[in-house]
Amino acid sequence: MDITEFRKRGKEMVDYVADYLETIEQRQVYPDVEPGYLRSLIPEEAPDEPEAYEDVIQDIERVIMPGVTHWHSPFFFAYFPTASSFPAMLADMLCGAIGCIGFSWAASPACTELETVMLDWLGKMLRLPKDFLAGTEGQGGGVIQGTASEATLVALLAARSRIVKQIQAHDPQRSEVEIISKLVAYSSDQFCATLGTTPSCAFDRITELGPICNAEGMWMHIDAAYAGSAFICPEFRPLLDGVEFADSFNFNPHKWLLVNFDCSTMWVKRRADIIGAFKMDPLYLKHDHQESGLVTDYRHWQIPLGRRFRSLKLWFVFRMYGLRGLQAYIRKHVGLAKEFERLVRNDERFEICADVVLGLVCFRLKGSNELNELLLRRINGARRVHLVPCQLAGAFVLRFAVCSRTTESRHAQEAWRHISELASELLRGQKR
Amino acid sequence: MDITEFRKRGKEMVDYVADYLETIEQRQVYPDVEPGYLRSLIPEEAPDEPEAYEDVIQDIERVIMPGVTHWHSPFFFAYFPTASSFPAMLADMLCGAIGCIGFSWAASPACTELETVMLDWLGKMLRLPKDFLAGTEGQGGGVIQGTASEATLVALLAARSRIVKQIQAHDPQRSEVEIISKLVAYSSDQFCATLGTTPSCAFDRITELGPICNAEGMWMHIDAAYAGSAFICPEFRPLLDGVEFADSFNFNPHKWLLVNFDCSTMWVKRRADIIGAFKMDPLYLKHDHQESGLVTDYRHWQIPLGRRFRSLKLWFVFRMYGLRGLQAYIRKHVGLAKEFERLVRNDERFEICADVVLGLVCFRLKGSNELNELLLRRINGARRVHLVPCQLAGAFVLRFAVCSRTTESRHAQEAWRHISELASELLRGQKR
Repeated sequence: MDITEFRKRGKEMVDYVADYLETIEQRQVYPDVEPGYLRSLIPEEAPDEPEAYEDVIQDIERVIMPGVTHWHSPFFFAYFPTASSFPAMLADMLCGAIGCIGFSWAASPACTELETVMLDWLGKMLRLPKDFLAGTEGQGGGVIQGTASEATLVALLAARSRIVKQIQAHDPQRSEVEIISKLVAYSSDQFCATLGTTPSCAFDRITELGPICNAEGMWMHIDAAYAGSAFICPEFRPLLDGVEFADSFNFNPHKWLLVNFDCSTMWVKRRADIIGAFKMDPLYLKHDHQESGLVTDYRHWQIPLGRRFRSLKLWFVFRMYGLRGLQAYIRKHVGLAKEFERLVRNDERFEICADVVLGLVCFRLKGSNELNELLLRRINGARRVHLVPCQLAGAFVLRFAVCSRTTESRHAQEAWRHISELASELLRGQKR
Repeated sequence: MDITEFRKRGKEMVDYVADYLETIEQRQVYPDVEPGYLRSLIPEEAPDEPEAYEDVIQDIERVIMPGVTHWHSPFFFAYFPTASSFPAMLADMLCGAIGCIGFSWAASPACTELETVMLDWLGKMLRLPKDFLAGTEGQGGGVIQGTASEATLVALLAARSRIVKQIQAHDPQRSEVEIISKLVAYSSDQFCATLGTTPSCAFDRITELGPICNAEGMWMHIDAAYAGSAFICPEFRPLLDGVEFADSFNFNPHKWLLVNFDCSTMWVKRRADIIGAFKMDPLYLKHDHQESGLVTDYRHWQIPLGRRFRSLKLWFVFRMYGLRGLQAYIRKHVGLAKEFERLVRNDERFEICADVVLGLVCFRLKGSNELNELLLRRINGARRVHLVPCQLAGAFVLRFAVCSRTTESRHAQEAWRHISELASELLRGQKR
C-alpha cells in the first residue's frame, strides 16, 4: 500500500469508524458466538501473496464484528468504562504516524516533555499536593503507565528498593534476600489503598491510613483507577483527601476521562525513589543531557523499555473538552447512576447494596443469591444490555456501571424497564 | 467534537499523516531543542473552556515537531527499527474505535480469538515447533505482550512459580521465601538467551545451551526482540535452531515486521505454566465458558489486566503484505546493511567490529575510543543522519542500523558519504 492508497483507505476507515460509532446502539451489545468461532472463519496460515484490501475490510463485518462485545454501546453497563473520544482517536492517529519510542529524552524530546507537562496539568486539575508535580524544580512528577496493574507493581518495586537501601545503609552486612524475606505489604482484600474498588466503588479511609504509613516509614501507594477522573470536580475532590500522605498515586484516564486505552497516570513525590529501582544505562541509550539533571528518561520509571507518545491523547482531550467539558462529562455519568438508583429504590422487590457515590450502582433482588444469578443470566442471555456481577459480603450482586460516552437518560430508563420486566417474568416463574 | 466534525477532522488527519511521512526525509532527523524547551511553549494549566481544533493542530508544528526525533526518516540509523506501515496504522484506527478491553474471552471474544490464531499464523511463518502453537488441541500458544521486557519478566515469574511448585510438591514444608532465596537466573551480560543482541546483534548458541537447560530442569527463555522477524526467511531460520529446547520464546514484530508499536509476540510450550503464575479470578471477570477449558483468558498471561485489540495489526499486515512481501522487506534491509558494510570495508581507515548478519553494521575508525567518540559527536551534531554507539569488548563502536521502511540504497550511500567526509575532516584536524 503506497501513500496515495493510504490517503484513500485512511479516509474510508475514518468513515467506517464514524459509521460504527454512530450506529453502535443498533448492534447487539454482547455477541452470540461460541468459543472457537473465529478459527474456522479464516485460513489456517498467512497468505503467501498480498490480498486485496477490499477482502480485508469485508472480513471486519464477517469475522470480527460477530465476536465483538461492544464496550461503547450505550447499553454496555459491565465492568467499568473504557474511555473513547474523537480527540483521543485523532491524537492516536498522530501518535502512530510519529511512531517514536520515548525511552529516553533524546529518543524524542517532545514525547518526554509533553508527558511531564501533561501530568502536571492533570495533577493541577486534581489539585494534587505540589510535591507530586515536576514543575521546573520539583522532586516529584508524573508518568504514563500502561495500566493500573503496572503502576501498582512499579510502586511495589520502588518501595522495596527504597526500604532495602535504607536498611542496608544502617546495616551493610544484611543481604537483600534476607531483608526482602522479612518485608510485608499491607493491603485490603482489594489490594493497596484503593479509592473506588472495582466490585462496589468503595473508598479506603486514607486520611486514617496515611498518618500510620508515614509514622512507620511505609510506602503508601493509592490506586484510584476508576474514581480518580471524578476528582477533577470540586464536589468529588474530598474523596482524595489524604493523598498528601502518599508516596505514589495513580488513576486511569483511559477509564473515565475520555482518553482511549492505554493511559494510566501515576505520580510520585520523589522521583529518585522510582528511578532507583529501575535504572538501566547501556551505552546505546546514553545521551549528552542525561547527566545534567535537566531531563527525564522515562525508561527508568517503568517495566517496559519502549513507550509510545501517549501524552498527545491527553493534550488533545484536555484542549478539546476544557476542564469544564470534562467535569460536565463526569457529572452526567454520576447523574445517570443516581437516576438508575432511584428507579431501583422505587421498586420494592429490589435493594441497593452499596452507596452510589460515582457512576456505579450495585443492586439485587431481595432474596437468594441463586435468584440473582438467574436474573443476571436472563439479562445477559437476552443480549439487550450487558452487566457483570460482584460479590459483596457473601451476596451475589448486580453491577450497573455507566460506561459509554453516549449513554443518555433514555438508555438507563430502557435498561431498567428491561431488567424489571425480566425480574417480573422470573418471579412469576418462581411462584408457580 | 461530534461525529460529523470527526469525519472531517479524521480525514484531515489522514492527510497530515500522509504528508508527514511523504516528506519526512526533508525534516532534520534529530532535533535542535534543549531540555525544557516545551514547557515554555504551552500554558501552565489546562484550559477551562474548549479550544478551537485549528489551534491544536497548528501546535503540532509549533510545539511538537521541533522536538521530535524522526524515527521513520530514512536517515535514522539509531537504536533498532520501530516498525510502521500503512496497513498497521489502519488497523490501529479500527482498534481504537472498537476500543474493547480483552482481559477475558467474554470481554470481547474476537479480540482473544484473533490473537490466538494470529500467533499460530506467525508461529508457522517462523516454523516454530508445533509445541508452541495453540491449534485446537495444543498445550502451548502465543500471546501479545507490550514489550520484550514484559515478556522476559513474565517468563521469569512463570519459571519461578513452576519451580517453587515442583519443589513444594516434593517437600511441602519448605516455604516459598526460602526456596526463592536459593533460586538462580543464568544470563549473559545481555540477559537470558538472546538471538540478536542490541549492541551488536550477536547470537547465543542455543543449540548448546538448550540441552543443558533441559537436562537440569531449568526454564529456558529466548529473546529475539529484533532478529526474530528475520526468521520468516528460510535463509535466516537456522539462527533459531535450538528453539525446540526452550520453554518460552519472544520477539517484537513492532521492531522489524511492519507492525506499529506495541506488539511483542511470545509463545510458551505449556500455557499452564504461565497461567499458574498470574491467575486472578474475581467474580466480576468470571464468565460461562471459562471452566470449559475451551477459551483463553489472556489476563492470566500478562502483568496488566487491560489489553487492546492488537492482533488486528498483525492480521492487516500479514494479509496486505503476504509472507513474500514481508520476506522481501527483511531482505531489502539486510541487503542495505551489507551494502553499507562494503562501503566501510572499502575504506581502510575504518574497521567492521562484528559480523553483519542482519540489518546492523558495527564499525569504527581504526584508532582510539576518543577519536570515535568525537566522530559520533560530529555525526549527530550535523543532524543529517542519526546514529548511536555501543561498547564491544572495551571499544567505542558506532552502530548503523537500517531502520526506516523507506530507507533505500541512496540513503545508505549518502549516509556513508557524509560520515566519511566528517571522518576526513576530523582526521585532518588531528594531524595538525
